[in-house]
Amino acid sequence: MSDSQTGLPVFDFNHWTAHQLGRVEMALSSWVTADSPADLGHPMRYAVLDGGKRLRPLLVLAAAEAGQPADPVAALEAATRAACAVELIHAYSLVHDDMPCMDNDVLRRGKPTVHVQFGEAQALLAGDALQALAFELLVPEDGSMAAALSAQLCRQLALAAGVHGMAGGQAIDLASIGLRLTQTQLEQMHRLKTGALLQASVMMGAACGDVSAAGLAHLSTYGQHLGLAFQVVDDILDVVADTQTLGKTAGKDAEHDKPTFVSLMGLQAAQSYATVLLDKAHAALAASGLPRTHALHALADLVGGRTH
Amino acid sequence: MSDSQTGLPVFDFNHWTAHQLGRVEMALSSWVTADSPADLGHPMRYAVLDGGKRLRPLLVLAAAEAGQPADPVAALEAATRAACAVELIHAYSLVHDDMPCMDNDVLRRGKPTVHVQFGEAQALLAGDALQALAFELLVPEDGSMAAALSAQLCRQLALAAGVHGMAGGQAIDLASIGLRLTQTQLEQMHRLKTGALLQASVMMGAACGDVSAAGLAHLSTYGQHLGLAFQVVDDILDVVADTQTLGKTAGKDAEHDKPTFVSLMGLQAAQSYATVLLDKAHAALAASGLPRTHALHALADLVGGRTH
Repeated sequence: MSDSQTGLPVFDFNHWTAHQLGRVEMALSSWVTADSPADLGHPMRYAVLDGGKRLRPLLVLAAAEAGQPADPVAALEAATRAACAVELIHAYSLVHDDMPCMDNDVLRRGKPTVHVQFGEAQALLAGDALQALAFELLVPEDGSMAAALSAQLCRQLALAAGVHGMAGGQAIDLASIGLRLTQTQLEQMHRLKTGALLQASVMMGAACGDVSAAGLAHLSTYGQHLGLAFQVVDDILDVVADTQTLGKTAGKDAEHDKPTFVSLMGLQAAQSYATVLLDKAHAALAASGLPRTHALHALADLVGGRTH
Repeated sequence: MSDSQTGLPVFDFNHWTAHQLGRVEMALSSWVTADSPADLGHPMRYAVLDGGKRLRPLLVLAAAEAGQPADPVAALEAATRAACAVELIHAYSLVHDDMPCMDNDVLRRGKPTVHVQFGEAQALLAGDALQALAFELLVPEDGSMAAALSAQLCRQLALAAGVHGMAGGQAIDLASIGLRLTQTQLEQMHRLKTGALLQASVMMGAACGDVSAAGLAHLSTYGQHLGLAFQVVDDILDVVADTQTLGKTAGKDAEHDKPTFVSLMGLQAAQSYATVLLDKAHAALAASGLPRTHALHALADLVGGRTH
């Protein structure tokens, strides 16, 4: 199908998503192998495969498309590796986060959590091994990725996952239970806990796609607003959705007395805030002047409208 | 002091070690900062600083000296980063390994373990953040390391830490409690659990020091024998040393009904086996033809004679 005025093909997000998800699922399944010492690959695969919306991998692949790489085939291969790497970091964080000493949750993506299914020790080790595997994927053995890109992606991922990113955000989250946070404090927590990896997904994809420096600044703004909007919507869903729709235990923020955007601002103001943030994300894309941002726009819409 | 025949300075291992440890401790202290969200830096520093023999960092620095890098200053800087990176992986593995769902140990390096001191959730997150930091160190922000070296080190470290390295070895260890392993199975477990990271320490150092391909093959043999000897000696010490000397709970292998080289071979045969392995490590160094292997020889002696 093509646009009647421009003659260019119309962007079909459903088709794009199905295509990219096929690529990501196949890559994840081949890289997270069952063949492993003491069956450690089984909890790793259980944690990673057949579940999840794959928002982070889709952001990587969408951002890579916005660039103009000298070698598009190599760029897509690199972006696929980066997409899987961010998903492995996300998956490991869920495994550890669900453990009894953290959130103590038994249900994730509609299935028993990894420690319920395989025991705590296996869950701990599987999470640890998934983090290592994420970095391994970024440096292919066959030298098919430019070393400069591999090194840059490793650094971006390490920063997003570490003490000044996701792990630090989770530490704030733990320390905040039962406390009254200001909106600034709450946003700081989420900027680290979920925002850093979402933002890194965009920037790692952009690096794979050779996005220009000017474009990178706008994509960074996009990633920042999108990351925060994601969390605001997450807090809203925890209140309005039921456990079956979510695939994880609903209402647990309130039950755990966790500060959320809804508890801080009220439901309606939180919904308006999510809209404002997503508008800013769209505006950053428009201002970037980058050619192919259809998928990034559509992913922002997806974050706004997601039902789980 | 110089050798009366050659006129070259005599290698003084104690002086070398003191010098290198000073470098490593300073680097670790500056890179693992207390300045962090929700004080997560505190358990991280507690896990890493003021303790440990630093065998892995010393192996990195010793192996780097065996090469002939074009830029010795840059090589030393890279080796220092690699030395700290392997130590962070080692430190995080101890934190997670000590947790109640794994070995449930309360004493490490003569101090309460991290989860005893800071709680399980902080221990879990601190370990996770230390792993990420290890990779961050390998890609300096200022671009002071060649990207090809950064990428290579990231891959070596990821492989050594992951499912086909340390994490996989720990999974075998857990699965082996109460089982009778053959010597081959026991060696496979240790090759992954401790051997992979010790071997990677040697090979990462060699990469920093630009050791020739021919030299690398011999260093790999050295690392393999040294890694296994380390574990045989560890099993011996668990039987013959007391808790105070070890700085960790002695006799726990037997208590946990874990297979060891001593339980498999008997004490005397295990001691002979350690000697054989270390002789092979020395022989590999001699065969390498590399110029500066004094420190690597001395580290093999240290492994053989260590009292804790």
